[in-house]
Amino acid sequence: MSDTGEDDRKQGPVAAEIREDQDIYSEDGSVRSDYLMHVGAAIADRDLLYLRQHVARLHASEMGDLLEAIQAEQRRMLVSLLGDDFDLSALTEVDEAIRLDIVEHLPNDRIAAALGEMDSDDAVYILEDLDQEDQEEILAKLPFTERVRLRRSLDYPESTAGRRMQTEFVAVPPFWTVGQTIDYMREDDDLPESFTQIFVIDPTFKLLGTLDLDRVLRTKRSVKIETIMRETNHPVPAEMDQEEAAQLFEQYDLLSAAVVDENNRLVGVLTIDDVVDVIQEEAEEDLMRLGGVGDEELSDSIGSTSRSRVPWLLVNLLTAFLAASVIALFEATIEQIVALAVLMPIVAGMGGNAGSQTMTVTVRALATRDLDIHNAWRIVRREAGVGLLNGLLFGVLIGIVAGAWFQDVNLGGIIAVAMLINMIAAALAGIMIPLLLDKFGADPAVSSAVFVTTVTDVTGFFAFLGLATWWFGIR
Amino acid sequence: MSDTGEDDRKQGPVAAEIREDQDIYSEDGSVRSDYLMHVGAAIADRDLLYLRQHVARLHASEMGDLLEAIQAEQRRMLVSLLGDDFDLSALTEVDEAIRLDIVEHLPNDRIAAALGEMDSDDAVYILEDLDQEDQEEILAKLPFTERVRLRRSLDYPESTAGRRMQTEFVAVPPFWTVGQTIDYMREDDDLPESFTQIFVIDPTFKLLGTLDLDRVLRTKRSVKIETIMRETNHPVPAEMDQEEAAQLFEQYDLLSAAVVDENNRLVGVLTIDDVVDVIQEEAEEDLMRLGGVGDEELSDSIGSTSRSRVPWLLVNLLTAFLAASVIALFEATIEQIVALAVLMPIVAGMGGNAGSQTMTVTVRALATRDLDIHNAWRIVRREAGVGLLNGLLFGVLIGIVAGAWFQDVNLGGIIAVAMLINMIAAALAGIMIPLLLDKFGADPAVSSAVFVTTVTDVTGFFAFLGLATWWFGIR
Repeated sequence: MSDTGEDDRKQGPVAAEIREDQDIYSEDGSVRSDYLMHVGAAIADRDLLYLRQHVARLHASEMGDLLEAIQAEQRRMLVSLLGDDFDLSALTEVDEAIRLDIVEHLPNDRIAAALGEMDSDDAVYILEDLDQEDQEEILAKLPFTERVRLRRSLDYPESTAGRRMQTEFVAVPPFWTVGQTIDYMREDDDLPESFTQIFVIDPTFKLLGTLDLDRVLRTKRSVKIETIMRETNHPVPAEMDQEEAAQLFEQYDLLSAAVVDENNRLVGVLTIDDVVDVIQEEAEEDLMRLGGVGDEELSDSIGSTSRSRVPWLLVNLLTAFLAASVIALFEATIEQIVALAVLMPIVAGMGGNAGSQTMTVTVRALATRDLDIHNAWRIVRREAGVGLLNGLLFGVLIGIVAGAWFQDVNLGGIIAVAMLINMIAAALAGIMIPLLLDKFGADPAVSSAVFVTTVTDVTGFFAFLGLATWWFGIR
Repeated sequence: MSDTGEDDRKQGPVAAEIREDQDIYSEDGSVRSDYLMHVGAAIADRDLLYLRQHVARLHASEMGDLLEAIQAEQRRMLVSLLGDDFDLSALTEVDEAIRLDIVEHLPNDRIAAALGEMDSDDAVYILEDLDQEDQEEILAKLPFTERVRLRRSLDYPESTAGRRMQTEFVAVPPFWTVGQTIDYMREDDDLPESFTQIFVIDPTFKLLGTLDLDRVLRTKRSVKIETIMRETNHPVPAEMDQEEAAQLFEQYDLLSAAVVDENNRLVGVLTIDDVVDVIQEEAEEDLMRLGGVGDEELSDSIGSTSRSRVPWLLVNLLTAFLAASVIALFEATIEQIVALAVLMPIVAGMGGNAGSQTMTVTVRALATRDLDIHNAWRIVRREAGVGLLNGLLFGVLIGIVAGAWFQDVNLGGIIAVAMLINMIAAALAGIMIPLLLDKFGADPAVSSAVFVTTVTDVTGFFAFLGLATWWFGIR
């Protein structure tokens, strides 16, 4: 089928954009190497035509991935070459270090102009990382209403709904009809870029209700808004922690939620796309904390990464010396039966593994609120049961192998019993330690691992070496 | 202010519902104990009035939390007491074991009737866990169109977009005007319960474009749909894995996406609330796998939990014996210097901790696609640098403490060097092993931990005991 030029013109740009969209990624989800090469060459050649056609048009999140995939030098060049064609909302999609680097190389005038165009939540996201001075300078360049809005968001503490909300929303009075509402939306140019809900407020901005757009569309023009609006079951206080807000979204399958101040006045709207990021960060945080790493990012330097990992290693070192001093108690025994030194890491290590299994389940269940006082006792019993069962299984297994290895039935029996003891200790530590930490307000993901390993190391070495000392009558 | 009876009647039910909503949870997010007591008593007394007023009205997700908080006996009683007032969509909010238990105690007629009322994605969620026979019996009781829809979803493999999609959607032809579209939505009773997008299709259901509801509302009645619709940039093939679909949602901040078959015909819609669950499951999966636990749920029995954890422990046992046999090589050395047995777990353990830090970061970065071939080399160098830096730091630290403890400068020097070697090995193993597993198509979250620990144990014991044997000239 051959298209006329006319048709091509109409379809062209959109089609090209789509092809771009789908094309910058390779199979495995990373940015395609040949695309990176082309972009790199275009930056080196200052090929504005290519950059405008194939880079400036990317979706903000694709631009973000591109910025993360190229070198710092290229990054700064690209941004300066694109000039006004560079959409600053891409900055909401990159690591903090990269964002700061780019922002520092842009004039404040340019940033202010871009922030003015953005949804307020994105603007706040970029502003909040800047130092006080730059923040003030940029805010001063913004029109009054914009400035007030952004300042209000920035006044709320980090990680609250108020900080994450978008201050643009559609709100109508309850006595309007559906027809009036639709006409207002058709005529007003100052509406947010996209929205899924409209809010019903009184003259003092007190929140009266909510209305999903599909409800508006399904209702006759003459019907009054107040008769079809829903009471807002879950308005989010601006001071609420973003994690808590995210849980509301998950629990009630919300797409957006009204954010209200302490007087129940509507100040903004929290949308699901921001919440998805929060949910993801949350889950990631738990994983990173269990693994003993903090908020580090891939773009961090060697120095700062090393520093951020030292505290956890240091705490572990203390517990390692504790375990070592338990072994030291039995030096005389080891001197006589060196096989004990060979086998003791097995007892301690298997306990550590079993303990970390239980701990992982517990930490996750606490985070998702599946584990609470109502079922804690049942879960403790279950874990103890699992510890007993697996302790018996692995005790027998290791006992046989160790007994055969060193041709010593006694040694086999001793390691079997020590294994059983340590597996039960591991199970109990794996569940009780996170539960207790949670009860006393500490984050179980951060500190459970150290305590659990301490318990399994100490119990493992003590049970095994202690039993051997007693059985073989060494002193 | 005193309200008239009339006002009370109008406001009453809604207000009561809201109060219920906010009230069943205590501060820490678990279901309130006194509420559970009341419900328990009402179940025991068969107090239908209380149950209908205070339980039947709960939001599906609250009902789910309630069902998870009470005993199995009470659960079955509650469902049977509520009868038709029990909203089966609560079943999409509970653990699989609880869902199956409840469904098994309900007559198939009742289930069929409830599924007929539900959105198809929820209905499929409940149906997919049932055995073939029950599934067929329930499907047979459904009206033709419902049956065809559900079968189509069930025909797609588990964990695909086709399985997760909702088959109810609003679709209009491109030549309709905005006015016609609004009138259609006002008059048609068969629309999905809620929606945020309408789709534009040709007579064969080929997808032509998408239209957000706010766009419809902002446009004059006379405007043709085809002039305001957007090309659908990201239609989701029904066969696409749900994780991949979730990544599209995240990348492009989608609220819903058209699901199309191999001929680009619209078959359903995937909505953000389902995707949020997928994202959460994903992150959870990585965490659980790194911790050596599979897909277990809190409601699993002791037996099945124990069984599911055995494989990982077994693999770890093998590597523990490998490490033990390295120690066995140096029995003669340990016999002469028992301090080595005391100190060796420190070297191995600290390496394990450092390795798991690096591994955690790597696994997470691979999952979020932040780590790919473009920056892998940079990250490997960074991790090696961190290993060197922390190896020097902790080598010196441990060397001093160990040297002082055993009054032996040589021992201090040996453990310092062994520590440095093991920390560098840990860093390299922590990044290379997940990278290689990922490259060869294995899930790095499942198997990295075992390999990394093996490397750090073997390297730790070998470096420390080997250096000591050589230095002190023992053979």
